[in-house]
Amino acid sequence: MAASARPAVVLFSGGLDSSTCLAIARADGFAPHALSVEYGQRHAFELVAARRVADALQVPLRTVALDLRAIGGSALTADIEVPKDAPIGQGIPITYVPARNTVLLAIALGYAETLNAQDIYLGVNAIDYSGYPDCRPAFVEAFERLANLATAAAAEGRARYTVHAPLMKLSKADIIRRGIALGVPYALSHSCYDPSAEGLACGRCDSCRLRAQGFRDASVPDPTHYVTSR
Amino acid sequence: MAASARPAVVLFSGGLDSSTCLAIARADGFAPHALSVEYGQRHAFELVAARRVADALQVPLRTVALDLRAIGGSALTADIEVPKDAPIGQGIPITYVPARNTVLLAIALGYAETLNAQDIYLGVNAIDYSGYPDCRPAFVEAFERLANLATAAAAEGRARYTVHAPLMKLSKADIIRRGIALGVPYALSHSCYDPSAEGLACGRCDSCRLRAQGFRDASVPDPTHYVTSR
Repeated sequence: MAASARPAVVLFSGGLDSSTCLAIARADGFAPHALSVEYGQRHAFELVAARRVADALQVPLRTVALDLRAIGGSALTADIEVPKDAPIGQGIPITYVPARNTVLLAIALGYAETLNAQDIYLGVNAIDYSGYPDCRPAFVEAFERLANLATAAAAEGRARYTVHAPLMKLSKADIIRRGIALGVPYALSHSCYDPSAEGLACGRCDSCRLRAQGFRDASVPDPTHYVTSR
Repeated sequence: MAASARPAVVLFSGGLDSSTCLAIARADGFAPHALSVEYGQRHAFELVAARRVADALQVPLRTVALDLRAIGGSALTADIEVPKDAPIGQGIPITYVPARNTVLLAIALGYAETLNAQDIYLGVNAIDYSGYPDCRPAFVEAFERLANLATAAAAEGRARYTVHAPLMKLSKADIIRRGIALGVPYALSHSCYDPSAEGLACGRCDSCRLRAQGFRDASVPDPTHYVTSR
């Protein structure tokens, strides 16, 4: 990475998709700044994974605390059971967090402005997660439009923001193939919505099953650490 | 307020503008739900004021904690001096918080979705605060457009969001006259960016001076509690 590389903010959960996104941002020529949001998610272990992956990729990581439990409304933040072994792709899942990507992008925009960055990376994917409305191209485009009206940097002509969603049209297997080529340490990443206290993946939630299927489809050994009872 | 009134989320700082906004939302026929965000602001006393005003108006108040100090970049959240006795209206002030209204509206949208509310009130004002880019009509309209692409409720046709900015074109004096007519307890509200430990207003920051001038222009006695050295 050249010392003169322009900064980019990468929304980063420590999961498979955003870990890949981080590597893509660097491959695109940016100096990536990873941003994690601790929003009261049940699967807070992902923040441990985020630190491990960021360190392995030698990328700076900032963590912002936002307690979304105060507004509730999701299995990921409220006291609602995470579904196991449930059909995928039928309607919007209970793991949907109200307005999550809007909130995450808003915080990323603020961070971008303080860094004098004009580029934000978001690891959304319209194929595997078509159930989440805030993972669609129209949403990403609407946020980009908003960003260019929202900040002092844009108002003063110092910034023209671009929201990059490089995984949007990739299958999980394609994402994994791309990440392997870029050296993403998937063994350190974490995707499970309901891990054990030690951070072992349950293997049964939507996120675990999409991830495992992706490794199978990509014909890549799955490096995920699962609970032994799987 | 009728028991059947539709809910609305009102972004609420405990300041003069948002206190007026809360009363307007109720006058518009909504059941207002006040939402405060504790974002690491220096003037955290405003959260005490928010509770007092909400209680006086008998409106439920939720507070969400978001530590924006992790991204810095403003006199309100970083270790930068709040300007005193400085000219107002020349460029974007140092008290601008990067992407603040985008972040606040995003959280309000999530809360609205959990409440099954379709209306969000924001006390921005394009006249007194023309220096803040995220107080302009084009910004509010762009957020409303985003909101209608961002949530499960919108995607499933259960919600069509409106972002209300009823103070947008009012002068501070007009806002005060409107609030007095609606019974807003301005003595309990708080606007100062740099209050004393006891919550007394400094009288010298931009926010204090715009507020004081508003009371003068409205020919209404100023009920603000200032530090005695003023």
